[in-house]
Amino acid sequence: MTQHDAVEVIVAKRDGQELSDSQIDWVIDAYTRGDVADEQMSALAMAILLNGMDRREIARWTGAMIASGERMDFSGLSRPTADKHSTGGVGDKITLPLAPLVAACGVAVPQLSGRGLGHTGGTLDKLEAIPGWRAGLSNEEILDQLESLGAVICAAGDGLAPADKKLYALRDVTGTVEAIPLIASSIMSKKIAEGTGALVLDVKVGTGAFMKDEASARELAETMVALGTDAGVHTVALLTDMSTPLGLTAGNGIEVEESVEVLAGGGPADVVELTLALAREMLAGAGRDDVDPADRLADGSAMDVWRQMIRAQDGDPDADLPAARESHVVEAPSSGVLTRLDAMAVGMAAWRLGAGRARKEDPVQAAAGVRWHARPGDAVTAGQPLFTLLTDEADRFDRALASLEGGYDVEPEGTAYSPRDLVIDRIG
Amino acid sequence: MTQHDAVEVIVAKRDGQELSDSQIDWVIDAYTRGDVADEQMSALAMAILLNGMDRREIARWTGAMIASGERMDFSGLSRPTADKHSTGGVGDKITLPLAPLVAACGVAVPQLSGRGLGHTGGTLDKLEAIPGWRAGLSNEEILDQLESLGAVICAAGDGLAPADKKLYALRDVTGTVEAIPLIASSIMSKKIAEGTGALVLDVKVGTGAFMKDEASARELAETMVALGTDAGVHTVALLTDMSTPLGLTAGNGIEVEESVEVLAGGGPADVVELTLALAREMLAGAGRDDVDPADRLADGSAMDVWRQMIRAQDGDPDADLPAARESHVVEAPSSGVLTRLDAMAVGMAAWRLGAGRARKEDPVQAAAGVRWHARPGDAVTAGQPLFTLLTDEADRFDRALASLEGGYDVEPEGTAYSPRDLVIDRIG
Repeated sequence: MTQHDAVEVIVAKRDGQELSDSQIDWVIDAYTRGDVADEQMSALAMAILLNGMDRREIARWTGAMIASGERMDFSGLSRPTADKHSTGGVGDKITLPLAPLVAACGVAVPQLSGRGLGHTGGTLDKLEAIPGWRAGLSNEEILDQLESLGAVICAAGDGLAPADKKLYALRDVTGTVEAIPLIASSIMSKKIAEGTGALVLDVKVGTGAFMKDEASARELAETMVALGTDAGVHTVALLTDMSTPLGLTAGNGIEVEESVEVLAGGGPADVVELTLALAREMLAGAGRDDVDPADRLADGSAMDVWRQMIRAQDGDPDADLPAARESHVVEAPSSGVLTRLDAMAVGMAAWRLGAGRARKEDPVQAAAGVRWHARPGDAVTAGQPLFTLLTDEADRFDRALASLEGGYDVEPEGTAYSPRDLVIDRIG
Repeated sequence: MTQHDAVEVIVAKRDGQELSDSQIDWVIDAYTRGDVADEQMSALAMAILLNGMDRREIARWTGAMIASGERMDFSGLSRPTADKHSTGGVGDKITLPLAPLVAACGVAVPQLSGRGLGHTGGTLDKLEAIPGWRAGLSNEEILDQLESLGAVICAAGDGLAPADKKLYALRDVTGTVEAIPLIASSIMSKKIAEGTGALVLDVKVGTGAFMKDEASARELAETMVALGTDAGVHTVALLTDMSTPLGLTAGNGIEVEESVEVLAGGGPADVVELTLALAREMLAGAGRDDVDPADRLADGSAMDVWRQMIRAQDGDPDADLPAARESHVVEAPSSGVLTRLDAMAVGMAAWRLGAGRARKEDPVQAAAGVRWHARPGDAVTAGQPLFTLLTDEADRFDRALASLEGGYDVEPEGTAYSPRDLVIDRIG
């Protein structure tokens, strides 16, 4: 590998130049080894955030992060693979019904997931509400479970893209999270290293999403689709609305319950719609668009895979989920129509009730969260329960209520209400 | 002090906002105490470099760095004080004759200096070529020497602006040196904390200077003059040419020799001119423009102060300076006129011969450097010595010669040559 110098690479990007392949390979490798210091990488990250990277640079950066660790290989499996990544939203439990559903359609789903930080929950935090369920699997266990059941949701191992792990922790404390080239390469390095054949990206847009405006979300989606495509992964992105939270729950155990309702053939219409839309993209990407996933929800085969998948990771699919010690009901202030329910307000409330964490070492409460009893467009009656707040610690209610304040509108009956499209666009 | 958060401050500057007084005070204090990490400060420095700071922000930033350490107080001295700072150039030995000269005119000069890094030499490195001379003085010794002799050139103590010391070391390794707000506040925090009454800034412009173009040099000069003025220090800047090196020597001991020639009433015309120009500004700033420094060069009183000043710091003004073990002569390639002598080429050659250091812990050679035997405009004859390269290690000649290559032009007799003005402008 050609030797470079950290200051040379930083100054090049600072002065608006493109980094060469050799500079990118060197800086990622040297940072992983500790030869480029955190304070040098954070200055480079800020220069990238402010001056950008072009498609070649982002692809090379992603490739260098992949090369920093191991790659998994699913080519020995008897069926094709497809994975899904969401940029994070409130009430976004889609992975839970989606993975067993797609597996029931004959495509293997290696869903290597993370824990949540801030107002959006993490898939592993939700599943850990199930008594006994374990997130950590060896690579061999992942392969075995994919072959036997077709679906695994587990923690991503430390071996995949260690440069990304180190860089992500650094960006988190240096104000350099919001750089599209770095977000895209962070997500895609892990997904490409994981070895999936097809990938569907759920890029959220709206108040509760990381990307508040459609233009940024579209740029991120296009960047990631290009990265996946260049790396030989069949990649598609859906831009989906996150101004309103998904379903009727935001939390951990309560989102598992809602997911099981969907697998049982019921559940909120928006959760079902998005699950099926993403499943169809995953199946198409894996060459199995001959199968209709709605049939596998209806015939119970997706539920069968769910139960096997939970059991395979030592969880009990029939166990009662933990109940919150404390609850508080917010009633509708007037009769009329719920015309707005803000995703960020609900997400912050759930976080403050204990469903999420502020620092990555914090624990989360399995039973904490928010249930809402109406969705935008629904009629409500003065005094009816609008929200149920759940937590194990009653002193959390005040701050959660403050988060909800101003986060919803009930307007007189007959007020015009036009629902937003859940799937805004498809890219790829 | 109001509590802030490092990411909040970084993100504000990253997004192009002005930092509040409270944010600036907090971040400098927290960085000095170690509560803001190096990787956070380097990201902030890069955001400042790319997005800038306005006059209020720079003044507050400078004030916060001053407040991070001790301040000196020269108000008890029986004469006024004036100091000079140069942004660094090749062959820039001006401090050596200037400090005793201004002292001989009745103004005290507290010249707290540094060591060199890269192609420009440091004042302390030059004086350390004098056998026995010691750079480190206590604050009490500084005050005593200023009172008794009127001049002291010594190392700046660790107590002045420790935030700057820490930040400068960080900027050096993170590609964030070239930020005018940070350069200006770094220089001015130390000079204001030092307590001088008047300050003259020698801001160099040209190939051998830190600022290559006049617009940047002017912006830096104006920023520093504003900072000094706002802090109650009588501050003036001269923009001076550094496309050609000063005098006829670049090195350590050989620059001391040239300085002594100036103090003896001789020396190269440009060194004398700049020494007198800066002396007149210092005297005016200190309210002593009734004295003509040229008289004090002529009557030997500046030389008397020099000898006392060297002796007071345990140096022997009569000792032979170290001679280089190896020398190499470069001859004029043709007869004609020397029309160009590039400061950076000469500076790099002197550095590579051992006069300067690449890392701050490296030693320097007292006798290494470059002598040139003609100045731009001088006639030369084919085969006459044009440069003499000096070093203790003969294996350094090759790289030094490579640095000089293309760094000078000898053109046919009669070629038009128009000398540049040494003092380009005066600001303040």
